[in-house]
Amino acid sequence: MSPKQLTTAFIENVRPALDSGRYPIKRIVGEPLVVEADLLKDGHDVTVAFLKWRCEGEKAWRETAMEHLGNDHWRGVCSFDTIGLGEFTIEVYTERWLTWQHEYLKKFDAGVPNLALEIEEGARLIDAAAQRAKKTADAPRLKEFAAALRAGSTAEVRALAVDPQLQVLMTAYADRDLTCEMEPHRVRVDREAARFGAWYEFFPRSAEGHADRGSTFRDCLPRIDAAKAMGFDTIYFPPIHPIGFKNRKGRNNSTTCEPGDPGVPYAIGAPSGGHYAIEPALGTMKDFEWLLKEIRKRDMELVLDFAINCSPDHPYVKEHPDWFHVRPDGSIKFAENPPKKYEDIYPLNWTCPDWKALWSEMRDVLLFWAGKGVRIFRVDNPHTKPIAMWEFIIEAVQKQFPDVIFLSEAFTRPRLMQALAKVGFTQSYTYFTWRTQKAELIQYFEELTQSPVKEYMRGNIFPNTPDILPWHLQRAPRNTFLHRFALTATLSPIYGMYSGFELCENEPFPGKEEYWDSEKYHYKGRDWNAPGNIIDWVTCLNGIRRSERALQLYDNLRFHRADNDQILFYSKVTPSRDSRLLIAVNLDSHHYQSCQVEVPLEHLGLEENASYRVRDLITGESYEWRGRWNYIGLRPDCPAHVLSLA
Amino acid sequence: MSPKQLTTAFIENVRPALDSGRYPIKRIVGEPLVVEADLLKDGHDVTVAFLKWRCEGEKAWRETAMEHLGNDHWRGVCSFDTIGLGEFTIEVYTERWLTWQHEYLKKFDAGVPNLALEIEEGARLIDAAAQRAKKTADAPRLKEFAAALRAGSTAEVRALAVDPQLQVLMTAYADRDLTCEMEPHRVRVDREAARFGAWYEFFPRSAEGHADRGSTFRDCLPRIDAAKAMGFDTIYFPPIHPIGFKNRKGRNNSTTCEPGDPGVPYAIGAPSGGHYAIEPALGTMKDFEWLLKEIRKRDMELVLDFAINCSPDHPYVKEHPDWFHVRPDGSIKFAENPPKKYEDIYPLNWTCPDWKALWSEMRDVLLFWAGKGVRIFRVDNPHTKPIAMWEFIIEAVQKQFPDVIFLSEAFTRPRLMQALAKVGFTQSYTYFTWRTQKAELIQYFEELTQSPVKEYMRGNIFPNTPDILPWHLQRAPRNTFLHRFALTATLSPIYGMYSGFELCENEPFPGKEEYWDSEKYHYKGRDWNAPGNIIDWVTCLNGIRRSERALQLYDNLRFHRADNDQILFYSKVTPSRDSRLLIAVNLDSHHYQSCQVEVPLEHLGLEENASYRVRDLITGESYEWRGRWNYIGLRPDCPAHVLSLA
Repeated sequence: MSPKQLTTAFIENVRPALDSGRYPIKRIVGEPLVVEADLLKDGHDVTVAFLKWRCEGEKAWRETAMEHLGNDHWRGVCSFDTIGLGEFTIEVYTERWLTWQHEYLKKFDAGVPNLALEIEEGARLIDAAAQRAKKTADAPRLKEFAAALRAGSTAEVRALAVDPQLQVLMTAYADRDLTCEMEPHRVRVDREAARFGAWYEFFPRSAEGHADRGSTFRDCLPRIDAAKAMGFDTIYFPPIHPIGFKNRKGRNNSTTCEPGDPGVPYAIGAPSGGHYAIEPALGTMKDFEWLLKEIRKRDMELVLDFAINCSPDHPYVKEHPDWFHVRPDGSIKFAENPPKKYEDIYPLNWTCPDWKALWSEMRDVLLFWAGKGVRIFRVDNPHTKPIAMWEFIIEAVQKQFPDVIFLSEAFTRPRLMQALAKVGFTQSYTYFTWRTQKAELIQYFEELTQSPVKEYMRGNIFPNTPDILPWHLQRAPRNTFLHRFALTATLSPIYGMYSGFELCENEPFPGKEEYWDSEKYHYKGRDWNAPGNIIDWVTCLNGIRRSERALQLYDNLRFHRADNDQILFYSKVTPSRDSRLLIAVNLDSHHYQSCQVEVPLEHLGLEENASYRVRDLITGESYEWRGRWNYIGLRPDCPAHVLSLA
Repeated sequence: MSPKQLTTAFIENVRPALDSGRYPIKRIVGEPLVVEADLLKDGHDVTVAFLKWRCEGEKAWRETAMEHLGNDHWRGVCSFDTIGLGEFTIEVYTERWLTWQHEYLKKFDAGVPNLALEIEEGARLIDAAAQRAKKTADAPRLKEFAAALRAGSTAEVRALAVDPQLQVLMTAYADRDLTCEMEPHRVRVDREAARFGAWYEFFPRSAEGHADRGSTFRDCLPRIDAAKAMGFDTIYFPPIHPIGFKNRKGRNNSTTCEPGDPGVPYAIGAPSGGHYAIEPALGTMKDFEWLLKEIRKRDMELVLDFAINCSPDHPYVKEHPDWFHVRPDGSIKFAENPPKKYEDIYPLNWTCPDWKALWSEMRDVLLFWAGKGVRIFRVDNPHTKPIAMWEFIIEAVQKQFPDVIFLSEAFTRPRLMQALAKVGFTQSYTYFTWRTQKAELIQYFEELTQSPVKEYMRGNIFPNTPDILPWHLQRAPRNTFLHRFALTATLSPIYGMYSGFELCENEPFPGKEEYWDSEKYHYKGRDWNAPGNIIDWVTCLNGIRRSERALQLYDNLRFHRADNDQILFYSKVTPSRDSRLLIAVNLDSHHYQSCQVEVPLEHLGLEENASYRVRDLITGESYEWRGRWNYIGLRPDCPAHVLSLA
């Protein structure tokens, strides 16, 4: 055995990092990335460290000096200005000039006589820097400094040793031969929409709300305009592909469908096509392209649903029967959860011998729609497909379309949800849908926004979905919808709402957390302006989200004391403090609740005992507050304050 | 981009692991290694996981099934029976037979009619296993099972589905094609002496304790026998190499040495040789070899000191001047800490162009002494040499001599000490030398023995060293030496004591934490049986350490409540509870101290309110105790209980 590499430093405990750099962390364009690490080196030489970073496609590193915080712990800050897969690294090296300076000054100050040798050593360091400066104008300047050092009086040498101009030059042409650089860590740099957005989900066939017939893409603009008016910026459609005929489901998930039943959009594939095609009842590809353009015109964005469910009519069944589970009698296995059978769906066999082609096909479906201009995909049940497939697909799609966003719809075990986020999902559904108590809301949102999970998993929170009418919304009063929406709109900068929530739809399928007469199975009649709706409340809060930057950030959520179990009290503040919000929500749908709340004065930049004015951005009312403890009271029918310190 | 590898599971958060497996963790031969990990996989197939391990030189893995603890978290236990660099990995795969069994039973129990296809699928799995069983006797047995399944009545098939014999065979010939295995993690497997030992340090030239002349190796046996009688098992010598003449230091570190001054053993190198040679005043290489043999005869072991300090007379200076720092005038730079000069020492230039040869030479020095039979090295000041060099040297030496132990004498910043342990040092000096207060002792020993640091850093604790007479021992009474020794002998299974401690030597160099008239600089007269010594106390405690297995383990230290700031109360218990000790130490050298202590009943396997007898292994006295809270009182001149539950 002989030594291989001259490693001069050890770079350890790099943070943030996922599994020592195995997976990229995530950041938004322009968002600060604070990198910390322990840098360990033998001996007493002066060490400097640089945080270096580059965006995808760049060859040269940018760099910034790291600061030593003590106890061998260092910190640097950078940010990425280009969407894509950036990377950062840390370089540590022995700074010979500073080492010389330190030693020289120590001897000089101690009155050591005759420093001629030390001075010559310093001059030689300058000579070497002049060499590195090559033909620049700095080379002769450095040579002059070397000559001055050699010829100088004691006092002159002492001054030159700390000459700031010389030091700048010595830093610029530093000798980095004793350098050590870690393996770069990757950073997925996303656009702002990965962090901030309000999604409105509706079934295009329900756009007009007719009970007897479906709407088409051409009928969708009024609903989209209504969403825009409510302050939503993103429209999300369940699958728009041809719906299978064989074993089609009927109303309320019945196994027998009546003539005219439109089928479940999640049973994909019919003679008219599979995942590349449009359900004929919605229109043509041209109609889709027109609609996409109209949505863009409104400065809005469209999310498509990527649900890998194949109906028995899906083209894959004929073209690639080997992609499915073939049984001993040659039939294809349908989905089941014994004794339940889902005969309208054939699951794919992800580990079949032809898996490479199958996985690549899934990638190609997404590339096809990305090619059409779709830039956000909500992925249905990713946790029932190989985690490694998502890593491959997401990387491949984002390589070609770096601005594509993936939302993981994995309502499953926590570590599996986190694993999907680690391998690349931009956003994730969360357990927020079921979190209603103050203590569990605090615990869960602290995990999401303040634990290491925040480095890679962004919660896109939904109060409801087409699949989930959670128990607390079932037959719930309008007040519940008000405070649930207030939480949704302020706890996370990114959220989605499934249409009908604004109408306080609350009728459950008996014994299930699902909607009665779910529009997944039939045409649903709706009055989009039904009395008792909370459209004004939604519009108001979405407006505040747009004007207050603090609500557009993810990890600035902090909970504070409120001496009442029904009042959740938290702040959202921008780093520059140009947007400072204190938010209180009454979780009780039936009673007025009040209490003292503890204002985080330091966090807001306020003095102890300061007097200050807070203005409720919902009601427009102002309050004079003083010091740390103040009083809040909230009626259940106007259950939130969003208080601004202007 | 196309998919590369069929990864079917994700193995995450493997513990214990250092930097995701970059560095080996450490274990002792036979010590259990509990491995935990999060295993993540899509879908509902039955997954099994195996912990696999092998010792150095083995090709085949041994394996044991891991247990699912819930929440995707798994655990397995193994141990290594061979000294060297072992490794472990985790294999996860889809168990097709158990998956079939699970699905079949679910359908059967739900009364699904006609399971002919399912049965045929099961039979085909057995056929495949029979194929894998090849020409073994199991192949026909499996074929019979397959036939029985195909031909069986409903009840027979139901019974076969869970037949234990069939299940054993299906496990033995499981189809591991959908398998996933992580990169192996390394484990440094050390011999017992890495964890358990009592070292006695003395200068061989001081063996006889003459003030006017030095002793030789041939004079050392009486001192070694005395150490053996005190219960020590390891003898540790400061450097035994030729001491330089140029700029030799005199008494009490004086820069002028008097004729006859023997010099500092740490200034290595003289015309008679360098690191491969023996100081002529101690004897010859033959004498050394004789002494080593004598030590071994006594079932003891010798530790040599690896101090890389070169005196100006060291052969390297002539042979390899380029290994040093050469100044502009051609002279070699000596060590200094301005304004202090250490003109008797030339530091090596670890990053000189010829660094590979230099590092290899350091390795060769150790290989030379290991070749002589030395198997433990105490390394002087490793933190002033490249961390990477130690990684290289230790790996290279242990590759050839797997039983070699390295102790890092790095009294430096905590993370640097940990880094040295990570890259390979078997043991480390600690801050124990300066920890005297109850709170700081608890905090520090919990870090050493119960935090993740325990996976790679073993504290070898010293109450004193030739370099350190800590302030609390300076002019301290005998009682202080008694309780410091009690702590030393019971807080860690591995410790070292520098001779003179048993004589309560306590005279400091004024203003420093060093000994007055340190034997580093001259011959020191000593009466090894001086009145007031604590030899009986040392002998007694070392005897208890030998008879009580609980004191031979490292990470079984637990602190318990004692309602007195001067009483430290802790337990050491073996996993099998065949050795159960409760230890109390009075930290007050001047006063009797007493208090109630809380006995950890669960930990000891005692019932609430149980009556039990504890016997003090120091005094032989017994006490009847009952329940959780009991009373302890300790005189300062007999300041410890080591209470055994027999």
